[in-house]
Amino acid sequence: MNSRIERLRAELDRIEVDSFLVSNPVNVRYLTGFESSNAFVLVKREDVVLMTDGRYAEVARAVEGVDPQIVDRDFLPGVATRVGEVAHGPVGFESDHVTVARHAELVSAGVELVPMSAVPLTLRAVKELGELDAIRRAAQIVDGVLVRLAEESVVGRTEADVAWWIVQAIHDEGADDISFDPIVGSGPNAALPHHHPGDRPLRRGDLIKLDFGARVDGYCSDMTRTVVLGPASERQREVYEVVRRAQEAGLAALRAGVSGAAIDRACREVIGQAGLGDAFSHPSGHGIGLEIHEAPRVRVGSNGRISQGTPVTVEPGVYLPGFGGVRIEDLAVVRPGGHDVLTTATKELLEL
Amino acid sequence: MNSRIERLRAELDRIEVDSFLVSNPVNVRYLTGFESSNAFVLVKREDVVLMTDGRYAEVARAVEGVDPQIVDRDFLPGVATRVGEVAHGPVGFESDHVTVARHAELVSAGVELVPMSAVPLTLRAVKELGELDAIRRAAQIVDGVLVRLAEESVVGRTEADVAWWIVQAIHDEGADDISFDPIVGSGPNAALPHHHPGDRPLRRGDLIKLDFGARVDGYCSDMTRTVVLGPASERQREVYEVVRRAQEAGLAALRAGVSGAAIDRACREVIGQAGLGDAFSHPSGHGIGLEIHEAPRVRVGSNGRISQGTPVTVEPGVYLPGFGGVRIEDLAVVRPGGHDVLTTATKELLEL
Repeated sequence: MNSRIERLRAELDRIEVDSFLVSNPVNVRYLTGFESSNAFVLVKREDVVLMTDGRYAEVARAVEGVDPQIVDRDFLPGVATRVGEVAHGPVGFESDHVTVARHAELVSAGVELVPMSAVPLTLRAVKELGELDAIRRAAQIVDGVLVRLAEESVVGRTEADVAWWIVQAIHDEGADDISFDPIVGSGPNAALPHHHPGDRPLRRGDLIKLDFGARVDGYCSDMTRTVVLGPASERQREVYEVVRRAQEAGLAALRAGVSGAAIDRACREVIGQAGLGDAFSHPSGHGIGLEIHEAPRVRVGSNGRISQGTPVTVEPGVYLPGFGGVRIEDLAVVRPGGHDVLTTATKELLEL
Repeated sequence: MNSRIERLRAELDRIEVDSFLVSNPVNVRYLTGFESSNAFVLVKREDVVLMTDGRYAEVARAVEGVDPQIVDRDFLPGVATRVGEVAHGPVGFESDHVTVARHAELVSAGVELVPMSAVPLTLRAVKELGELDAIRRAAQIVDGVLVRLAEESVVGRTEADVAWWIVQAIHDEGADDISFDPIVGSGPNAALPHHHPGDRPLRRGDLIKLDFGARVDGYCSDMTRTVVLGPASERQREVYEVVRRAQEAGLAALRAGVSGAAIDRACREVIGQAGLGDAFSHPSGHGIGLEIHEAPRVRVGSNGRISQGTPVTVEPGVYLPGFGGVRIEDLAVVRPGGHDVLTTATKELLEL
């Protein structure tokens, strides 16, 4: 915990502010371990002030290394006034989290504010060993759920039923929670990248897109596999192989020092060469950790270098209205000399 | 749907803007029926522009009564540029949702912005009959789950196990989802208003605080009951009766035209008279709908009048470190002449 605060303090020196107001609850948790829906941390050079409301008072007082202060549940006058009292000099704040309305409250409390986007987010990209261990366990759980799902008889069950089966299986495998609502897209619905599972029954001949993740100790996993119910048609197999080669090209590019844009390009080239470039409508991946989508980005224009210890997903897809869609997604972590793939479920086209 | 847009347009006249940019996904859903994690709706006088990214393109094109426009997944340059192109004159925006960073992007795209907080939120407070029907069904589900839970043998099971049992039961009763992670606080943990269920086994003699809700067609229910495992001690019964009388006093005050502050005061007076005022650390309730907490507020300083057709919770509590805590919460909807309580589970102290 303290090393995280120290890394944030090092940023303060670089960007010439005296303190930093952390408002995103995920970043509050990352820096202090304190979990709530309403907390603010002011990281000063000499100490760390944790502000929260009465509902969380008892838990806040047990957090180590912080000065807990209980404020009104509304932002104004509690936090704004308190920040005005305890901050001296310019205060950095999360401009990608603080709303215009809250900013106005802070300004009216006399706080001198310096907008800074993505500072704690950037700190979170490279994971510590304990964080990677949690992500690895969360990935093992989705692997295990896929193996069990492949043994289930799913023809005739609705997408929503299968999604709920996945939720229960993730829990049974020992996860704390799901990391997002499972996506089960069957037949034509597989052409919708973020389809919400509904009442459509799974039918023989359908492509089924399965995208789900688990949460362990707060950390997320994320994996997508696309299967077919019964023997695959020639066209299904062709599209699948394009996406599979694209996904493997993306993984092949993944090593320390590469940019997210380069991984995205590697995926996109394979799909483009197959004449399906217009059918790949989303980024090729994303960082992952306490949030399902976090830094780094893996997409066009993401030119920052990915460092060792950074987990990312690689997940190209092809979506063809009427026909369906294929997405294949692995979760991998950058290691010296390359990367480890944490999701190890087969990428052969499963015919269930 | 159209009547909701028309009500928003009436607000535009009142506040003298030409259009309104809706950015909160819940408000996007409320106004257009479109569900996604990334969408913006520009409500103009003559038409409604729905902006989303490629992942949701096919669904967006099926939304009635809007002009769908597919933009880059990143806010800049997609939405900001598009708003700059299609808006004429001042644009109202959700200052309680738009971040400082996004605001800067919109400004740099030449959009003339007028901060307006809580405009769509206020529209949502009074529910239509269809919305109330969904909330009523979500309330019936939690009633049913409590009846089943009272028949379960829970001594020796952990809080987390019981919370997961509740999640499964809510699903089994036909809900789409839970409306929030169930709170199961046992023994001393019942003294934490928002306790996260953990590994503590439930023991005979414990007060158990159970706070959970279901979601039906997107709409939330919310109910809290506190039970005791085995015969209640005299002190447990005393504290329970104070909270019960406070909760009934709050409900007795609930009718059209009353303020949230008056309901809160009614609860707080009973607890204060019992000498436990300092042990009641949160507001007495909240509005509820597509979000578990929405307008109106039911707390000190909430002086706006509550109208017919508005559902609110009434949920005083007393939290005593070491001893435990009691909270009782009902969900009620304001009706001509009073209110209907939608959660009908008994408020007798259950000794399980």
